Amino acid sequence: MSKELTIEQAVLSENARNAESNRGRFRRAGVHVVNLMSGAGAGKTTLLERTIDKLKDRLRIAVIAGDLETRRDADRIERHGVPVTQINTKGACHIEAHQIADAASEFDLERLELLLIENVGNLVCPAEFDLGEADKIMILSTTEGHDKPGKYPLMFKECRALILNKIDLLPYTNFDTNAAVADAKLLNAKLEFFPLSARTGEGFEVFTDWLEKRAREARRA
Amino acid sequence: MSKELTIEQAVLSENARNAESNRGRFRRAGVHVVNLMSGAGAGKTTLLERTIDKLKDRLRIAVIAGDLETRRDADRIERHGVPVTQINTKGACHIEAHQIADAASEFDLERLELLLIENVGNLVCPAEFDLGEADKIMILSTTEGHDKPGKYPLMFKECRALILNKIDLLPYTNFDTNAAVADAKLLNAKLEFFPLSARTGEGFEVFTDWLEKRAREARRA
Repeated sequence: MSKELTIEQAVLSENARNAESNRGRFRRAGVHVVNLMSGAGAGKTTLLERTIDKLKDRLRIAVIAGDLETRRDADRIERHGVPVTQINTKGACHIEAHQIADAASEFDLERLELLLIENVGNLVCPAEFDLGEADKIMILSTTEGHDKPGKYPLMFKECRALILNKIDLLPYTNFDTNAAVADAKLLNAKLEFFPLSARTGEGFEVFTDWLEKRAREARRA
Repeated sequence: MSKELTIEQAVLSENARNAESNRGRFRRAGVHVVNLMSGAGAGKTTLLERTIDKLKDRLRIAVIAGDLETRRDADRIERHGVPVTQINTKGACHIEAHQIADAASEFDLERLELLLIENVGNLVCPAEFDLGEADKIMILSTTEGHDKPGKYPLMFKECRALILNKIDLLPYTNFDTNAAVADAKLLNAKLEFFPLSARTGEGFEVFTDWLEKRAREARRA
């Protein structure tokens, strides 16, 4: 086991170096970079589509879409009129910082204001890999159950914002929003919380207003 | 990267040896072992609870519950009156065969007819690790989206049965059951398909009848 641990530490520390290099590059370019994470099926792509539609006339946006095998998400996003690059992880369960470095080279970063990274659908491994983003945002959906903060604590600890998606389905589930938020805040007192429905648009502007504000702050910094 | 690959191959081949050893032990004991996998929040624990209630008077059942940190699932399952052992992966995203070997030692396998393993909630990594089970069963829920077979193909390829859970929520989603099943069958022509709701019980008996039949076949083999 100790050999495995050493290798894992080496992979993580190489990733941390690459992430710091990405972070410096993004800061110099003045682009706000967001790493969007969730389990499979929580609604990352639908959320991205609506976010782009809301903000594309206010900010210059690009997307890096991570996926195991296909480029379905990239194709969906491209239809919304922003540049998209696809990372295929070939079965791996997370994106690493060196993949972001390569993917980001396909954009003119100086001209961008917001770069959205759609991570692989997985509540576990992506939380361990810093990509050099400014903010990690996670999506939990009401159909996944309110016990998730206790069961996947690292993801909740690492995030600046928690989006509770699919609130239109709340009446049909036994999801306890207060319990989920209380457990998440115990792990991370500073967590911002945005309940919304990416499908119906309910609650969406509070989130996109916050995201736009964060991007403008990065621009000035 | 080649050093990482070599280590990954070594981990997988050690796991494969442990899995074969588990498989022999389970076969000699005549116990049918099922590895239940899904993304986080697809309803594994609720499905297990209802499965136990349906079958515990017909089969001698035990459960191994895998979780990152807590033992909430084990506590929920224990209330249904069957023996449960917990594996805490301490943040790791899958269960490995040697952990099953240890956990199984807490039961009198010769007396069991059905051993249910609840894997960590993750559509990616658990599919790579054979645990020595007879059958892999995966749960997809209607709120996760019908594009999942194309995006997480290994999980669908490896399974004997696909449970489509939360069919009570179908009217409130844009889930296309025919598309999901067609894509899944392209990956795995022999896949058995069980649409059901673990919450309402709709469609449940077709699944538990099949599971009971599989367990009785293992007993006779």
